[in-house]
Amino acid sequence: MRFGFVNEKNMALLTDLYELTMAQVYLKENRTKTAIFDFYIRPTKKRTFFLNAGLEQLLYYLENIKFTDEDIQYLKEKGFEDFFLDYLKNFKFTGNIYAVEEGEIVFPNEPIVQVEAPLPEAQIIETFLINTLQHPILVATKAIRCNIAGDFKKILVDFGLRRAHGTDAGMKAARASYIGGFAGTSNVLAGKEYNIPIVGTMAHSFILSYFDEEKAFEAFAKQYPENTIFLIDTFDTIKGLKNALKAVKKLNMKSFKGVRLDSGDLVKLSKEVRKILDEEGYKDAKIIASGSIDEYKIKEHIEKNAPIDGYGVGTKLVVSSDLPYLDCAYKLVEYDGRPVMKFSPHKITLPSKKQVFRQFENGKFKEDTVGLYDENLEGKPLLKKVMENGKVCINLPTLEKIKEKAINNVKKLPKQFLNIGNEIEYIPSISENLKKVVEKLKEEIK
Amino acid sequence: MRFGFVNEKNMALLTDLYELTMAQVYLKENRTKTAIFDFYIRPTKKRTFFLNAGLEQLLYYLENIKFTDEDIQYLKEKGFEDFFLDYLKNFKFTGNIYAVEEGEIVFPNEPIVQVEAPLPEAQIIETFLINTLQHPILVATKAIRCNIAGDFKKILVDFGLRRAHGTDAGMKAARASYIGGFAGTSNVLAGKEYNIPIVGTMAHSFILSYFDEEKAFEAFAKQYPENTIFLIDTFDTIKGLKNALKAVKKLNMKSFKGVRLDSGDLVKLSKEVRKILDEEGYKDAKIIASGSIDEYKIKEHIEKNAPIDGYGVGTKLVVSSDLPYLDCAYKLVEYDGRPVMKFSPHKITLPSKKQVFRQFENGKFKEDTVGLYDENLEGKPLLKKVMENGKVCINLPTLEKIKEKAINNVKKLPKQFLNIGNEIEYIPSISENLKKVVEKLKEEIK
Repeated sequence: MRFGFVNEKNMALLTDLYELTMAQVYLKENRTKTAIFDFYIRPTKKRTFFLNAGLEQLLYYLENIKFTDEDIQYLKEKGFEDFFLDYLKNFKFTGNIYAVEEGEIVFPNEPIVQVEAPLPEAQIIETFLINTLQHPILVATKAIRCNIAGDFKKILVDFGLRRAHGTDAGMKAARASYIGGFAGTSNVLAGKEYNIPIVGTMAHSFILSYFDEEKAFEAFAKQYPENTIFLIDTFDTIKGLKNALKAVKKLNMKSFKGVRLDSGDLVKLSKEVRKILDEEGYKDAKIIASGSIDEYKIKEHIEKNAPIDGYGVGTKLVVSSDLPYLDCAYKLVEYDGRPVMKFSPHKITLPSKKQVFRQFENGKFKEDTVGLYDENLEGKPLLKKVMENGKVCINLPTLEKIKEKAINNVKKLPKQFLNIGNEIEYIPSISENLKKVVEKLKEEIK
Repeated sequence: MRFGFVNEKNMALLTDLYELTMAQVYLKENRTKTAIFDFYIRPTKKRTFFLNAGLEQLLYYLENIKFTDEDIQYLKEKGFEDFFLDYLKNFKFTGNIYAVEEGEIVFPNEPIVQVEAPLPEAQIIETFLINTLQHPILVATKAIRCNIAGDFKKILVDFGLRRAHGTDAGMKAARASYIGGFAGTSNVLAGKEYNIPIVGTMAHSFILSYFDEEKAFEAFAKQYPENTIFLIDTFDTIKGLKNALKAVKKLNMKSFKGVRLDSGDLVKLSKEVRKILDEEGYKDAKIIASGSIDEYKIKEHIEKNAPIDGYGVGTKLVVSSDLPYLDCAYKLVEYDGRPVMKFSPHKITLPSKKQVFRQFENGKFKEDTVGLYDENLEGKPLLKKVMENGKVCINLPTLEKIKEKAINNVKKLPKQFLNIGNEIEYIPSISENLKKVVEKLKEEIK
């Protein structure tokens, strides 16, 4: 019986077979000169922009990737040759990484991470790199969209661990949603590992196990007088609220944290519940809602003036339900100083080592231009060297700082970029010099 | 800098905070009698049935869950009390598990896993249990649907690791898709951990790094004469095929494994490619397609007679793109011998310890009835005791056996259950005795 956990010891094998078979040929043929690969996102109608996340985990992988004797043995059994296995035994990632910082906004077609490394190295890390970046970007973007929908006024917490796609997705969702401006997570391990506030209420099973709703509330509130959020919809929401208030009164509590609604017409119920809470003098008690929450639902609630103070956002956040995958790519753009590009239909890549230049006007985002790396264009360059010769060469910011940056960045976007449900398509410009490289390559291929 | 991997040592903390806060109250109040919880899936219009998977990983977790000193220290800092931390120090799962086997078909509302354990234990394991089961069921179901669409005649392989939601999802997708009848995976670590065949072709970057398509093909085929599948769409698919054939001829190869198409009109291109391959005498060379493949696409290709022999199925498989989450639940159904149920709108649970009875007619599936566990109804009982007092009490089948069973099971479904794109809604019957329990509880709650 085995679980199949991925960890520091076996992560080097978490790769597609073809990365290794190709690398074996590269080694055999001495094709080990410097390659540059771009990681970028292709346009989608569902998102105007993305919030970048996941870089720290990528850098951790690149600094620590190592093939163990057990890995080598397995690959030997699968037919890999000794010269290649010897290479893998001593494998280290020795390249440079140019990346957009976490918490920065990115647009389609912009390089988010550029890898500059000997071809076999850059190839071997491909699969893990995409795997490590995609999901955090999806979730951080979904999270900040929930915040945009709630006008940054709602308390948002990640309740998604149970419905995340496996253990690692649960961890990444907690971290990425925190970057996207969430206040905390229900995931205890993520709280410990990333130093994120952990939060929670109570489950229906708690109430059912007591058979008697009032008794259940009383038991919970007695244990956590400062911290109780009553889940009031197990049988009937308004009756549930009344039972919660009975428990509060019986315990002589002057205040309590709030109530959670998890089913039914949340707009209607929240209005009724707010009225009763206010009438009974519990003006500070918050109303938290959960159950199929996402940015569209939050927007709807705001439009209908639902007096909901915060949300537990679960499933739809962690699986990014309306866009469960990014059309993202990791493409070779230069080998041995020579730019390259692919011409498959609708899948054109931008050649060469590049830089993204971001311009602002009156404090608001104006436009991005993708140019050649050594161009001197107007605007703030987004790609920074974050790893040199396989070692991280910057001070990585704390999660708090990344979150702060993310919120600031989003607030610099003009209004039309923030219209949830009516996304505009924005694709950055391409510099004249980069266009020339593309044209030249098109000529060559004819 | 940290990654945040989940492993045997820290998995006990991979839980929602409220499981622990509730458990602390249970302990304080001596509510430690036996509870029964059901894991089941609520109906959806997108699936008629589900293929069960993930049980082995759940059992691994239950046998090995343990809170370390570091975990206890963290929880102490978060305010948990000493009596509860002492309990966690000695925590072991001591309950019984009744479960449907992996590779078995399950329908909405049927208990797939029933946990029978002291209430705090059954509560603490909730989050991990749902996390461990949901994604494998999603992917195994998607995989077998791809096989149904391809009439079990296509070679299907999992290419999804890069787009899976994190590392664990990549591992689970490989295992679950194998259960769903796939032939192998590109995921090398999954190959090693689960003993699944590993497969792969070549990437566009390989060809681009050579600048010259023919040279790239030649280099690859020289290294893997028996095993080369040429990726022919980097520039132009038909020119690519011709370049592949030039390389094959130059190397005097009598045969080669095949070609892969990854873009463009796959129906049209596969027909052109097949014609050329046959004319040139390479009748054994297979055509493999990839790029946005799922069961709907495979069905369309079959209807249009595309001569595609196999598929690399990636993103849409591993994120289960048309249904990226299950509306699944883990609900208390009995405490201390007393049945319980929830009455939230549209979210009614079935009380009591239950059994699922499956009837067949002329070798085909006829119907399922959900009844009480000790009822003696017609049909094969689906739930088996797989864990007793915290120890696995069955011989776990190999993945090969599970896959074999899955395919046999699906072939026993009547045709109307297998109509991809026109799913029927099937919900099992409820026995008279179980109905009586429900009615009685409804009366009590009034």
